[in-house]
Amino acid sequence: MASLRLALRSLGASRLYNRPFVRWCIPSSKVRAFSTKLSPPSKAVVYEQHGPPDQVTKVIDLPPVELGANDVCVKMLAAPINPSDINRIEGVYPVRPQVPAIGGYEGVGEVHALGSAVNSLSVGDWVIPSPPSFGTWQTYIVKEESIWHKINKNVPMEYAATVTVNPLTALLMLEDFVKLNSGESIVQNGATSIVGQCIIQLAKIQGIRSINIIRDRAGSEEAKEKLKRLGADEVYTESQLEVKNVKSLLGDLPEPLLGLNCVGGNAASLVLKFLRQGGTMVTYGGMSKKPITVSTSSFIFKDLSLRGFWLQKWMSSEKAKDCREMIDYILSLVQSGKLKYEMELVPFNDFSVALGRALGKLGSHPKQVIKF
Amino acid sequence: MASLRLALRSLGASRLYNRPFVRWCIPSSKVRAFSTKLSPPSKAVVYEQHGPPDQVTKVIDLPPVELGANDVCVKMLAAPINPSDINRIEGVYPVRPQVPAIGGYEGVGEVHALGSAVNSLSVGDWVIPSPPSFGTWQTYIVKEESIWHKINKNVPMEYAATVTVNPLTALLMLEDFVKLNSGESIVQNGATSIVGQCIIQLAKIQGIRSINIIRDRAGSEEAKEKLKRLGADEVYTESQLEVKNVKSLLGDLPEPLLGLNCVGGNAASLVLKFLRQGGTMVTYGGMSKKPITVSTSSFIFKDLSLRGFWLQKWMSSEKAKDCREMIDYILSLVQSGKLKYEMELVPFNDFSVALGRALGKLGSHPKQVIKF
Repeated sequence: MASLRLALRSLGASRLYNRPFVRWCIPSSKVRAFSTKLSPPSKAVVYEQHGPPDQVTKVIDLPPVELGANDVCVKMLAAPINPSDINRIEGVYPVRPQVPAIGGYEGVGEVHALGSAVNSLSVGDWVIPSPPSFGTWQTYIVKEESIWHKINKNVPMEYAATVTVNPLTALLMLEDFVKLNSGESIVQNGATSIVGQCIIQLAKIQGIRSINIIRDRAGSEEAKEKLKRLGADEVYTESQLEVKNVKSLLGDLPEPLLGLNCVGGNAASLVLKFLRQGGTMVTYGGMSKKPITVSTSSFIFKDLSLRGFWLQKWMSSEKAKDCREMIDYILSLVQSGKLKYEMELVPFNDFSVALGRALGKLGSHPKQVIKF
Repeated sequence: MASLRLALRSLGASRLYNRPFVRWCIPSSKVRAFSTKLSPPSKAVVYEQHGPPDQVTKVIDLPPVELGANDVCVKMLAAPINPSDINRIEGVYPVRPQVPAIGGYEGVGEVHALGSAVNSLSVGDWVIPSPPSFGTWQTYIVKEESIWHKINKNVPMEYAATVTVNPLTALLMLEDFVKLNSGESIVQNGATSIVGQCIIQLAKIQGIRSINIIRDRAGSEEAKEKLKRLGADEVYTESQLEVKNVKSLLGDLPEPLLGLNCVGGNAASLVLKFLRQGGTMVTYGGMSKKPITVSTSSFIFKDLSLRGFWLQKWMSSEKAKDCREMIDYILSLVQSGKLKYEMELVPFNDFSVALGRALGKLGSHPKQVIKF
């Protein structure tokens, strides 16, 4: 117990009791009488205060955790560093675990040990926390059986690790706001992002055509080609859309009923310009850090609706009951080669390198996924 | 027939045939065989081209019109000059009659004569065109029975003349976007407008509390008092809301779920600041001629929805079938003294004076209503 107390003290244990991630490292006295299974010791990326992630995070050792009857110990295989993970550590995300906390929100692991009453999972199964939950950046996690969703092992682990935050967001935005029929179109900015790439591919599967807007930059022609290979119908840089009537560019593409915005500023205005009468723009990101500016007549006479999407809120809603079915659908698309996006697997030992890349400090890199 | 041809020629008759307002002045040959009733000659405010209303409108004489079996000839009693009427004449309104056209969109009249097959109306009934339709600025109108909605005569004619464009807009915005329960609150800017005053009173009737924003100006204290007498719970000038957290001003008022914006610019931002998580702002006007600026996080994390309302579009939708019932409800509120707003009745002979006032060229005046 000495090492446990020590580890918890270093995490500020007196303030930690009863917080979600401590649930995994403090034995429950109720359960102790029925089970004496322990998890292996774990390594975790922890931050004790909010701030620049490369300054406030550190990898620490956590002691073994006793498994309750309904608990499952999962050996983590992979977990991504998403922008929202970074924002949580920075303290700028609206909902975040209280510090000290373990980083990460999604990931995939392999069942390592089972509490005595667990019957829906077996050792060796691949599982993801679903809905996702805080604290996936550690080597072993102990959580209740109901948290874990067993998935098909026939997908690369980096896809299993990243299936929720980006691809599910893409799927939900295509389905939750307007009814899109085959042959109709959507417009999006930030199309090279993983969500953007997923939107192109998921739309195509449904027969929905996509108009895509990307930043002007070196390599924009290559980016266009890449998105077209994924199924994009049209890809424009912002400067190409500095024309009097963007709709004149549409050719035989129908005017889009749905627009998706993860940029703000001018890139959001371009999405609005493409939308048809009665269209909806859904904002799910603000990469430019600029606001959205809309004329009053867009609302009154063009009847546009502007909405927002936040996966974490969706996950706390009634609708989230369908989330596992959607995850399975997305992974089936990955398995059949219909959904792909670039990632870079980085050994956990090189976490600080992966974090530096995710922070954009080391040039342009694909999504960083920690391999435990 | 000579005078008819002459009048039509002066209106560009060869281009006019089959357009809505000409329906009232050209005898239908099909109908002629069964009816020989004629309307009295009419005087109408006509514009032959778009432009400044005080330059392009003129009052002309129109010849008698033959009544078809299903037609009703209505002697107009009163019709308002609404901002949208002015915008139609200016040619800046998205949907407008083709020129040459008669001005006006709503009004009230008295049944003067009936076609042989009309059985739902009697001479002397008060009627309004419902849904409203173009061309109410004339002394006699002949239109089909189905256009006219018989109303209670126990209201002042200026309320009957103006019941649709402003009060119905207010009622629909309170009902069509979010479900408001008694005790909840709304926030609006442009609160001194007639729609704004109607919103305060209609909300109060439903037990809904209102937070009202008005411009900074001479007389703002009197304006506040006036709105409070109508039932406003709180009235602020924009400058009073230059505080870090506007919600700290709310006291025991619940955060509003619905915001109504007819101004744009900073006044729209203030409405957004008051809204609660998941709230909706409906834009129905843009008096400041400034756009609406919204942060991306307002959509993502605060889950705000921004929508628009346009009565003319609503009137062409399936929902408009309920419009007459709503009109009757609103007029019953007028009759019982629960809904009031200021207007100024001006004789038709002084149309140019009323128009000058409506254009804001003659200082501040209440809504101008032409009395025929």
